[in-house]
Amino acid sequence: MRPRLIDGATRIYGIIGDPIAQVKSPTVFNEKFRAMGKNAVMIPLHAKPDNFDQCMRGLKSLTNLDGILVTLPYKNSVIAHVDNVLPAAKRIGAINAIRRDANGEWSGDMFDGKGFLGGMRASGLDPKGLAIMLIGAGGAGSAIADALAEAGAAEITIFDRDEDRSQRLADRVARSHPNCSARPGPPALAGRDVLVNATPTGMSPGDGLPAEVGPLDDTLFVADIVPRPEITPLIELATRSGCRTMNGHAMVTGQADAILRFFGLL
Amino acid sequence: MRPRLIDGATRIYGIIGDPIAQVKSPTVFNEKFRAMGKNAVMIPLHAKPDNFDQCMRGLKSLTNLDGILVTLPYKNSVIAHVDNVLPAAKRIGAINAIRRDANGEWSGDMFDGKGFLGGMRASGLDPKGLAIMLIGAGGAGSAIADALAEAGAAEITIFDRDEDRSQRLADRVARSHPNCSARPGPPALAGRDVLVNATPTGMSPGDGLPAEVGPLDDTLFVADIVPRPEITPLIELATRSGCRTMNGHAMVTGQADAILRFFGLL
Repeated sequence: MRPRLIDGATRIYGIIGDPIAQVKSPTVFNEKFRAMGKNAVMIPLHAKPDNFDQCMRGLKSLTNLDGILVTLPYKNSVIAHVDNVLPAAKRIGAINAIRRDANGEWSGDMFDGKGFLGGMRASGLDPKGLAIMLIGAGGAGSAIADALAEAGAAEITIFDRDEDRSQRLADRVARSHPNCSARPGPPALAGRDVLVNATPTGMSPGDGLPAEVGPLDDTLFVADIVPRPEITPLIELATRSGCRTMNGHAMVTGQADAILRFFGLL
Repeated sequence: MRPRLIDGATRIYGIIGDPIAQVKSPTVFNEKFRAMGKNAVMIPLHAKPDNFDQCMRGLKSLTNLDGILVTLPYKNSVIAHVDNVLPAAKRIGAINAIRRDANGEWSGDMFDGKGFLGGMRASGLDPKGLAIMLIGAGGAGSAIADALAEAGAAEITIFDRDEDRSQRLADRVARSHPNCSARPGPPALAGRDVLVNATPTGMSPGDGLPAEVGPLDDTLFVADIVPRPEITPLIELATRSGCRTMNGHAMVTGQADAILRFFGLL
């Protein structure tokens, strides 16, 4: 199907960040819009930190702009620009999508974790009752831990080079999800069902594994959030070891439908 | 050729106005971008008057937005948002395109007149030395009178229901183009080479002619700026009378190349 040309009646969506040229969301969402026959477009919005607040105020004032995805480094600072912070975003303290509501207010939610979960389920695995080894307790790691706990994971062990950060994330997950056992711990795989890399390690040429995890048992499910390259050193090792795997692209496409529903388009 | 999908590296152009859904520029420019193989897009930007200044500040702060077309009702108020007002815009007191310059400043120019002229030349007529009957002394009429005078029209007679407005426009043209005889006058066609409708009359169902012009001689060139319908009552009468004609669509496409040059894309 041929993408329709944008015309005067096209509804506008954007993704704001710095840098912006590398983002995949415009391609993913514009393909979705085309498949759905929607007269809508998602454009990249490049805002430097000094201009971010001014850009947000201007964009929110456009009557034909209905929603904005938010990427690095603005997932925290965008909170000041919404009227309503939805539950996952509140638990995590970060937002990656905002929308104009019918009453003119703006609401923000966090879909990084929901996207990861969607990708995992699309790969045939439900985390309910499983034991997770999570590497990386930054923004992505926080969202993923929250979504896995929300989906009923039995235990989550969190490893980060910054031990304080692992501890803080474990405490936060334990507080909001008392049925999930969340603890900091070393990257050991005995008794774990799932290994998740939520660090950027694997993105740059020459990167190795995100942590010394030792040999991988073929019953392990291995997920890597790095969107590019599709085959990171971790995914390569996992494939060689006979594990089921999920890459960063699955997380991006896993988010898209949840965000389209949030935008009221699905 | 298939339009490319917008991705993270796409450069952004917009057209701002209120209302916006009816504008033709996104279609015209996106076809041009596609034909040129440019990774660029023109999107509609709907700003209500109360939000216009805030929208402009936000849009100009986006690093990947390079230019904005300006339509009703903001052709005058946008002047406050540019650092440099180029000559035609200064003479007319209105801007319909702004761009970010290499030094980070914003420049604005007025292409309504240049577009009209481009359309007229594409229709095979050069106004040099000709006598023009212009109906309508508003924003479009002002830009067209200025461009025709700049291109060497010998005389321009201006009719507007608001006589003061005709007088003011005639004075302004006479002042900036002393070689052109510009005067207010009734819509009479004896001795005229060109008749221009620069009013919106003809756009709405049931509209008649923009003025009582009497029968048309087949040597007359008749131009109507109304973009839709393509056959206005005036164009219909002119065609029936054997005149050469030019419609509002020719003015839009006549502008596009001049604006692409202004944006540094041609």
